[in-house]
Amino acid sequence: MTLTIYGCYRSRATRNVWLANELGLAYQHVPVIQVYRLPDPNAADAPMHTRSPEFLKVNPNGRIPAIDDDGFILNESLAINLYLARKHGGPLAPKDAQEEGLATMWALWAATECETHALNLTYHLAAYPPEKRDPAVAAAALAALPSPFAVLDQQLAQGGGYVMGGRFTVADINVGEVIRYAKPAQQLFDAAPNVKAWLDALHARPAFQKMWAARDSEAA
Amino acid sequence: MTLTIYGCYRSRATRNVWLANELGLAYQHVPVIQVYRLPDPNAADAPMHTRSPEFLKVNPNGRIPAIDDDGFILNESLAINLYLARKHGGPLAPKDAQEEGLATMWALWAATECETHALNLTYHLAAYPPEKRDPAVAAAALAALPSPFAVLDQQLAQGGGYVMGGRFTVADINVGEVIRYAKPAQQLFDAAPNVKAWLDALHARPAFQKMWAARDSEAA
Repeated sequence: MTLTIYGCYRSRATRNVWLANELGLAYQHVPVIQVYRLPDPNAADAPMHTRSPEFLKVNPNGRIPAIDDDGFILNESLAINLYLARKHGGPLAPKDAQEEGLATMWALWAATECETHALNLTYHLAAYPPEKRDPAVAAAALAALPSPFAVLDQQLAQGGGYVMGGRFTVADINVGEVIRYAKPAQQLFDAAPNVKAWLDALHARPAFQKMWAARDSEAA
Repeated sequence: MTLTIYGCYRSRATRNVWLANELGLAYQHVPVIQVYRLPDPNAADAPMHTRSPEFLKVNPNGRIPAIDDDGFILNESLAINLYLARKHGGPLAPKDAQEEGLATMWALWAATECETHALNLTYHLAAYPPEKRDPAVAAAALAALPSPFAVLDQQLAQGGGYVMGGRFTVADINVGEVIRYAKPAQQLFDAAPNVKAWLDALHARPAFQKMWAARDSEAA
């Protein structure tokens, strides 16, 4: 069994590393970096990056993360988690066709209803230097996210505190890693107390904390 | 067996209707309309729309399409197709865990790499009245889409003219229905001849044409 996860920690690879930790999977980690973070991607000593020819053979989209699982190559971080959960089974995985449908639905919901806006909150409220922050972009995200946060809050209230199936699953990891990007906007979480409690509980999990410690030790 | 598909044809419901036609499924069609298309959503004779209280019970996100399959409710159009394909099996469905992964990957790829830009081409090159079209939005879409079109073109060249598995599957329907929105920009297809031939072949399928005829007969 050889699983390789491509992608530095400061990327969506965190969600795959967290899931691998939850499942207790052994894996090799190749910290491919986003090309835009390198001053000179063509320098002889540049690390492997998202436009490196050898990485484009893994993912022709030039995106991280991607995995190579014994020769089977897959990209799209949320699809990678669904694949690994299904393959290794157990309570994290969808248990039947309906849960398969729900897990896929929530992955697409997170990616299309939340992720762009949530990332914009990370960038324009926290990560970017002040001169690069655009208040209009942050305001648009703050206007868009209360509606999906309310939907998730309702699901968590009705679903025993979980996204699907009344238990911790891959759907919590996939949705949680997207919602995490909105953390710089505390007001969203104050208005959705079930989302706040759920995300806090996710982040207290040892498998998340192990991933987060590795992320913190990665060069910024 | 009672399957209900909620969503007028001038929405992403087309992809679910097309798949249902491919599988030969019987279904009830409830043409829920987008609220922004109604002059007065609160009028006594307004049709069921995406903010109608009875529809919000089906999909609290207020989005179409959604399905009710014998009491199992699901939304997100691409997840609905994956669910229906898996449930009913046959050559359209993923055949193993790796194909499950690939089908999910391509759905997320279409939704995140292509759909917003492709829809912007439909809106800003064709559907909107001239005074509402924004050339900057169309230009941004035309700058973004050649890269994912090249990735899809390469996959089709290597994959026997299909998105996955060397045969027609749910992945072709899901990706094809997203790529269709880019059709007003013919130059994208001229630069990706495998994408052009593939989409033409998809649109020649009787199950697509049956859906399209029903769409054409729906009030604009």
